[in-house]
Amino acid sequence: MTTEMTIALDAMGGDNAPAMIIDGAATASRQNPNVQFLLFGNEEVLGPLLGGHPRLSKKAEIRHTTEFVSTGDKPSHALRRLTQSSMRLAIDSVHLGESQAVVSAGNTGALMAISKVILKTQEGIDRPAMISYFPTVRGESSMLDLGANIECNAKNLVQFAIMGAAFARSVLGIERPTVGLLNVGSEEIKGNEEVRAANQVLKKTIFDFEYCGFIEGNNIGEGSVDVVVTDGFTGNAVLKTTEGMAKMFKVYLIAAFKRSLASRLGYLLAKPALDAFSAKLDPRQYDGAMFLGLNGVVVKSHGSTDAEGFANAVGVAIDMIKGEVNERIHVNLELIGSQPEQYETFAQTALM
Amino acid sequence: MTTEMTIALDAMGGDNAPAMIIDGAATASRQNPNVQFLLFGNEEVLGPLLGGHPRLSKKAEIRHTTEFVSTGDKPSHALRRLTQSSMRLAIDSVHLGESQAVVSAGNTGALMAISKVILKTQEGIDRPAMISYFPTVRGESSMLDLGANIECNAKNLVQFAIMGAAFARSVLGIERPTVGLLNVGSEEIKGNEEVRAANQVLKKTIFDFEYCGFIEGNNIGEGSVDVVVTDGFTGNAVLKTTEGMAKMFKVYLIAAFKRSLASRLGYLLAKPALDAFSAKLDPRQYDGAMFLGLNGVVVKSHGSTDAEGFANAVGVAIDMIKGEVNERIHVNLELIGSQPEQYETFAQTALM
Repeated sequence: MTTEMTIALDAMGGDNAPAMIIDGAATASRQNPNVQFLLFGNEEVLGPLLGGHPRLSKKAEIRHTTEFVSTGDKPSHALRRLTQSSMRLAIDSVHLGESQAVVSAGNTGALMAISKVILKTQEGIDRPAMISYFPTVRGESSMLDLGANIECNAKNLVQFAIMGAAFARSVLGIERPTVGLLNVGSEEIKGNEEVRAANQVLKKTIFDFEYCGFIEGNNIGEGSVDVVVTDGFTGNAVLKTTEGMAKMFKVYLIAAFKRSLASRLGYLLAKPALDAFSAKLDPRQYDGAMFLGLNGVVVKSHGSTDAEGFANAVGVAIDMIKGEVNERIHVNLELIGSQPEQYETFAQTALM
Repeated sequence: MTTEMTIALDAMGGDNAPAMIIDGAATASRQNPNVQFLLFGNEEVLGPLLGGHPRLSKKAEIRHTTEFVSTGDKPSHALRRLTQSSMRLAIDSVHLGESQAVVSAGNTGALMAISKVILKTQEGIDRPAMISYFPTVRGESSMLDLGANIECNAKNLVQFAIMGAAFARSVLGIERPTVGLLNVGSEEIKGNEEVRAANQVLKKTIFDFEYCGFIEGNNIGEGSVDVVVTDGFTGNAVLKTTEGMAKMFKVYLIAAFKRSLASRLGYLLAKPALDAFSAKLDPRQYDGAMFLGLNGVVVKSHGSTDAEGFANAVGVAIDMIKGEVNERIHVNLELIGSQPEQYETFAQTALM
């Protein structure tokens, strides 16, 4: 048997766990027959569920524990007290080298806190970041940080650019991703000290990605760049804003179709096309968020996800391992390091 | 003649000026027959244009000047050198008490810089802010700051809440507006020091509006509150993101309708309803941004606006005057000031 990789699943995390996790793993296993799964959770519950998926059973191993992290648990509590939780043991297995990635639909804060302490931050990275991807006019783009770092200095932003590019390369399959720094205008004098300093460093270094300078909010949906770099406060606000907007558009559109008999008939005729429109924007396709900058791959699936969404999250973890995300990050960090005069300017301008 | 108010128009500002300004003023004049207009700009051009609108002519007076601020002009240049520009003279007229509001579709930075220096900041307000309003699931909401203040402390955010509520009251016609502070989560421990400190003060003071605590990005489109308060960096990013998203939805929707013969036919049947849907989201209805916290009403119409959009911007200026925005701000500032122990906590927690 030529097993290429092993993925640890927190089988008890998420609103619909554990049944959804097992169903999702079964889907992911069909799509990736060479992947092994370690399922962390209560054997008494997981055993019968796994029994319903004979193909997955051959590729999966249950690691029994009765402890798990709840949505309401404080990250510090989960980290210090729940040392036998399904989430913790799944992360431990990456640390021990048993698996190359962990996927969880559980408590985001706890997942980040435990991952930071157990896996530790990748060499050369000051702070891990959260990234996700979404549809645009042009195709798909990704954005980071999404909330792991509320306040960011120039160095953090530069590292986010490097991490985001590595992600776009492995998950979106873009050989030479374009990267933009979110600002309130495109001129060099715009924005706060941090974005201006980060812009200077990114402009002067030659990476294996293309840095495009400042972008503005409207460029996100337009798909002007493959990777949008911003601090965690802004990134979180922007990402959640797009969720609310999508909801609003749907409400208005449905109201429009209900307006007259003709428009109702029009809706019926256009329904297959409109369903395709919905599918293109289906949030399950863009499930969860990925943690970058850790020694190991950590993927957070959405808490309310279903099996299909969870399978997508597993797929992203597989892409990240195959794409050697952390190695790409390392290579680009070296490019800054090997240009001392650049780094000096950087040290002068950035808030280290 | 019982003229209630006079509005100064920068007749030379905007991509489609001055014809669009005159047409827009004519529309606004029809809707508000008691309003007088001062048109600042080149008489040789404005005279003939005004001649085409006999009704407006009776309500409008041209104030001749040949100087104007271009889109590319630096705010500092416009402020120091272009002292006879149509924009400057229009702002001067508010300062001199000749008019109660100025409306311009010209250079945003110049309009803010000149307004700050000539009109000065309202007593008790540290920094003016930019606000705008937009459609939501529930109706209309407004958001500030939109880019005038890139970095904001707690005191600024508290003042933005007060200014935003006064705006929602006068322009959106909401007797007791709800106000939310944008953050990355709803728990009190979330966010940076500034939002946490502002939250404490806003919670403890009884204003003539309802403070609802922290909100998240998705609450914006959902219309959870009437006023969204945030710093200018985040507000600018969020507002521009919604523009890009709207564009994306349109592109996907059109592509969906073009998918088959049935969906094309469906489109034709549903067209009137879809046009109503578009109209509801028509950016011209939500034209430009308003400056709050100055001694006078300043409205910035969108640079690429048409006559209808400009007339809406004039309508907003009229609502702000009628709603006595600055008086409402003053009243609420007093509510903080008259509670010394509150203010003390505030002083301790906020970055003054």
